[in-house]
Amino acid sequence: MVRKKVKFLLIRIPYQEILGTLRRILLSIDFAPVRADLCAHLITDASRDGVYTHGLNRVPRFMEMIRRGVVDIHAVPETVATRGSPESWDGKRGPGNLNAWAAMERAIDLSTQFGVGAIALANTNHWMRGGTYGWQAADAGVIGICWTNTMPNLPPWGATEPRIGNNPIVIAVPRSDGHVVLDMAMSQFSYGTLESNRRTGQPLPVPGGFDSAGKLTCDAEAIEKSARPLPIGYWKGSGLSLMLDLVAALLSTGQATYQIPRDSYRETGVSQIFIAFDLKSIDTDWVAQLVNDVITFARGSDSEVRYPGERTLAVRRENLEKGIPVDEELWAEIVRLGRQSSFPA
Amino acid sequence: MVRKKVKFLLIRIPYQEILGTLRRILLSIDFAPVRADLCAHLITDASRDGVYTHGLNRVPRFMEMIRRGVVDIHAVPETVATRGSPESWDGKRGPGNLNAWAAMERAIDLSTQFGVGAIALANTNHWMRGGTYGWQAADAGVIGICWTNTMPNLPPWGATEPRIGNNPIVIAVPRSDGHVVLDMAMSQFSYGTLESNRRTGQPLPVPGGFDSAGKLTCDAEAIEKSARPLPIGYWKGSGLSLMLDLVAALLSTGQATYQIPRDSYRETGVSQIFIAFDLKSIDTDWVAQLVNDVITFARGSDSEVRYPGERTLAVRRENLEKGIPVDEELWAEIVRLGRQSSFPA
Repeated sequence: MVRKKVKFLLIRIPYQEILGTLRRILLSIDFAPVRADLCAHLITDASRDGVYTHGLNRVPRFMEMIRRGVVDIHAVPETVATRGSPESWDGKRGPGNLNAWAAMERAIDLSTQFGVGAIALANTNHWMRGGTYGWQAADAGVIGICWTNTMPNLPPWGATEPRIGNNPIVIAVPRSDGHVVLDMAMSQFSYGTLESNRRTGQPLPVPGGFDSAGKLTCDAEAIEKSARPLPIGYWKGSGLSLMLDLVAALLSTGQATYQIPRDSYRETGVSQIFIAFDLKSIDTDWVAQLVNDVITFARGSDSEVRYPGERTLAVRRENLEKGIPVDEELWAEIVRLGRQSSFPA
Repeated sequence: MVRKKVKFLLIRIPYQEILGTLRRILLSIDFAPVRADLCAHLITDASRDGVYTHGLNRVPRFMEMIRRGVVDIHAVPETVATRGSPESWDGKRGPGNLNAWAAMERAIDLSTQFGVGAIALANTNHWMRGGTYGWQAADAGVIGICWTNTMPNLPPWGATEPRIGNNPIVIAVPRSDGHVVLDMAMSQFSYGTLESNRRTGQPLPVPGGFDSAGKLTCDAEAIEKSARPLPIGYWKGSGLSLMLDLVAALLSTGQATYQIPRDSYRETGVSQIFIAFDLKSIDTDWVAQLVNDVITFARGSDSEVRYPGERTLAVRRENLEKGIPVDEELWAEIVRLGRQSSFPA
């Protein structure tokens, strides 16, 4: 097969410059200042931590969804039902990252009162980097678990058409030398990774889906074309995805995957779950020791074994020091957006 | 490769005969009658529902673990810490299925009071069929989520030695025409399935691990020999397993996988989480409709697509009608146990 290599040039931009540019863009389209500030941070921090596919890369689509009215930048979530926990929230189609942040904040608060806190958030938008809310929980010293459903973008095991979501789940455990944070979609590779590998021409390390002829392949572009990425563990990830969708939609009385428009620019009204477990009643030293012992044992003498989130702090340090790698064309596009004083009609 | 085919003859035994035999065995070794009754039901029902690997097949090992004092049949779990939910319980190394059943019962109770109920159970034993506690929650009309850690039986991604558990997770959603219940370990195939395929000589449908030469293989026996089953989704299932272990051990202040003896007859002191979400505040008809719509959409026109737990009720009906398939030698062994009036020293 002939592999087309797309021109792809990374430049490094200082953290503060990216943050300032994004803040200016968001203010120019009428975000409230405190919300512009948080939203800019959440996007920049995803790229700072090395999750490029769900950080700056998402800005053009995010802006386009705001322009189309899919994302309502003024909407703030509203509690629609509560009897302690879980609270059911209506996200009112506000910015997905701001809604998710607010929901995890509340889950953390509830967990300090009740031991466990849970928020079911309906009618919200793409949360961008899911790991953000895991780090948020772990930074607060609690265990965080959250997941989201998505538009249909993954064929269930036995089918050829996308009829379930890739429904990422995040599980985070606090640790003083860097939290342990898993952030994984139910597809073997995210569409962000497929896109990134297609652009760089890099084959996937293991088969990531089927090509149009129905054969398992490591070619990211072939999988994008067939729209047949592989669920993790074949039927297992397929089943897990279905369950995460059901639980999120039921507890939030929101939409399930089958009701979410299958179009990345119109994907809205997703349902999410946020759970926090307090650890304050448990001896801090014992917690720290156990987490480190589990990691040490799992690694053994195999230096290739990584714990979830292991490289985050090192990448963060490097990117803060040297600047955050951004695709040159993407950065040019973002800078253009920043120069416009108001939003294009 | 020469495949050894082990002699393996299935006979069908009526449900009541199995139940009565198990009850008699448990009574003969001094189980309290009500506990003997529940324990016999839980084991028989797993086989009745087609989960043979985690039903009757486990009886000889269960009995041996009782004989060795690993399982204390008189122990009942004790609440060691509570501030609402999660409650932390000490399972006191009692029978794993009875402890798990009690913990899920309590999680269901708590969920009716608080919306969400959670129990963290330390110091317990193998729960046998995990799906049991999912069906239990769904039968009570709530969403159930539970998981357990295990002894080290799975190499993390990048390693050759078992240093994480296969840590099964169960997620259950109630449904009038048969609950939707996922029951899956973090390994692509359970050791029970590997054993069963090795005995029948059936190759695995997809690669389930590495052989001793480090090559991915569909040969169950080769994977048992190398002790290198594959985590679902390679690094993803490996990471998820680690997180489930951390959360279970931390919240229960119990043992993590690395502290659990790596020997199926001495595997004890495992840690488990049970979560229930109440659905009573949500319109019943809407819940029923949504669950059915999600399933219908996921299936589409592909009749091969199954939802988790789909075949359970059909298998249950068939096994209740025709008798439960049991390996002839296994049944002979169980009947011998039933004839002994007391426990062999």
